[in-house]
Amino acid sequence: MTLGANAAIAPPMEEATMPAFEELLALTAGAVEDMLRRLLDERFREGEILRPAHLLAAMRHGVLNGGKRLRPFLLLESAALFEAPGAAAMRVAAALECVHCYSLIHDDLPAMDDDDLRRGQPTVHRAFDEATAILAGDALLTYAFDIIADGETELPAPVRSELVLRLARAAGLGGMVGGQALDLRAEKEPPDEAGIVQLQAMKTGALIRFACEAGAIVGGASAPDRERLSSFGAAIGLAFQLADDLLDLTATPETVGKATGKDRAAGKATLAALHGEAWARRQLKGLVSQAEELLEPYGEKAAVLRQAARFVAERTR
Amino acid sequence: MTLGANAAIAPPMEEATMPAFEELLALTAGAVEDMLRRLLDERFREGEILRPAHLLAAMRHGVLNGGKRLRPFLLLESAALFEAPGAAAMRVAAALECVHCYSLIHDDLPAMDDDDLRRGQPTVHRAFDEATAILAGDALLTYAFDIIADGETELPAPVRSELVLRLARAAGLGGMVGGQALDLRAEKEPPDEAGIVQLQAMKTGALIRFACEAGAIVGGASAPDRERLSSFGAAIGLAFQLADDLLDLTATPETVGKATGKDRAAGKATLAALHGEAWARRQLKGLVSQAEELLEPYGEKAAVLRQAARFVAERTR
Repeated sequence: MTLGANAAIAPPMEEATMPAFEELLALTAGAVEDMLRRLLDERFREGEILRPAHLLAAMRHGVLNGGKRLRPFLLLESAALFEAPGAAAMRVAAALECVHCYSLIHDDLPAMDDDDLRRGQPTVHRAFDEATAILAGDALLTYAFDIIADGETELPAPVRSELVLRLARAAGLGGMVGGQALDLRAEKEPPDEAGIVQLQAMKTGALIRFACEAGAIVGGASAPDRERLSSFGAAIGLAFQLADDLLDLTATPETVGKATGKDRAAGKATLAALHGEAWARRQLKGLVSQAEELLEPYGEKAAVLRQAARFVAERTR
Repeated sequence: MTLGANAAIAPPMEEATMPAFEELLALTAGAVEDMLRRLLDERFREGEILRPAHLLAAMRHGVLNGGKRLRPFLLLESAALFEAPGAAAMRVAAALECVHCYSLIHDDLPAMDDDDLRRGQPTVHRAFDEATAILAGDALLTYAFDIIADGETELPAPVRSELVLRLARAAGLGGMVGGQALDLRAEKEPPDEAGIVQLQAMKTGALIRFACEAGAIVGGASAPDRERLSSFGAAIGLAFQLADDLLDLTATPETVGKATGKDRAAGKATLAALHGEAWARRQLKGLVSQAEELLEPYGEKAAVLRQAARFVAERTR
């Protein structure tokens, strides 16, 4: 199994145009989707009594939905920097995507964002029912730790343990779930600027940061390298959110393919709204430079990650 | 730190009366509650950005509720058989209780059992709101894996990995969550006897079985010992469910302190309802004998676990 991306494309990446990068992203997304499909098939696994078909169908609906698989992509590309074993990196990437998808299923619930559609398809609680959507999310979150801790993820046990710990921290009370809780309260009590930064670092930043750091962990990178990738992840996590805010602020529904102005309508303060479009674009530029600088020690090997940073900042949908 | 139970009480346990056992259970519950209180305090932990106070309060509400802590008790007593390090066993026991409590929070939600009270207190979605209850459950489930994988749980990394894997299997799609999904469908399509057995083995059995097996894993027990404790856990898991069914069938609300006849009212088939009270009592007796036989190799050291088996089968509330 190739690790995808880096290995799959021979010509110098710096010269590649953005469409080429998007092709690469799509190629990796396909490989991740294959792995997810295999992990969510109907065969029983050791230690399981039964995989209830109905629940599994809901999990598949929430996961196999044509997502961009940006987090797995970042994980796989970070892992490739350190010549990590590709099969193991792919399993960890799939586990990370399970966590991301569980969070979308729960976020879409009537008690949360109450969304009927995601990527043009009915959300899980619409396609099934609310109880099944809650359980499908729970099962996906649980399964992520199963996948990583499993000996089939061929990494030394201390590495698997470390990945479980870091994923749990990134996803939990002090990370993604905590950020979601802050976001719910933000609708009633608008946070100040520091509060917005904190909320976003938790809600969307923590998992993107984990993606990049996890690649280094899977690859057995040194502590400074791990720290470097973690900082890279933090920078593009910020860029990801800022680009999102900017799209909400400036794009039309026609160009992004979904409703815009949702943040404004919900009374949610964003940094882009607070400081304006020009400021946000300057910030984004700064974050991309910062991300690129962090990758300097890896030279040409990090070309795809550099493109990823630009892609995240410049995306138009 | 003593492991509690076994160490704390000197006189021969076989002679102890049931009230003495209940005291022992309560003593351990206090120690588990202390650990949970410490794990859910307001200090940040490494790798966390912030612990949102509101979400943490909801988690505490769902966990620090005076539960019997039966699963942690079984884990600690199983661990004591193999002279496991007490502090590590206590952390794993607390993690297991986090998973149990998360499942109660989600089960109580309007979309599931729609319960307003648990142990005489408002359920989490009543005391807070539905979105916060969903997130508190998510955060507790995630935190359980954090606690186990953390190096502060002083066990070799392969043991921590194995515990994460077994807990994820017991709690997930092929275990507790899968059982809950089957239970939801059982209201519409009543399962046959084999279906009921399977549902219960997943919904309540898997976590009780894990409790006993995990004790052996924490204690570094041999594979046959691990298998033996796992079988013990399976037997008392069955007994636990059967005793529960029997209470629902025969007890009055006055004696059990909660509504009875709920299974019948919900049209849920139980084995006790299917075969009658006399059959259920015979079965329970058989399960206790089977559980006691499984503990034979451990002699007096397993006295408390033998009492636990009887307690589970004979409980009147």
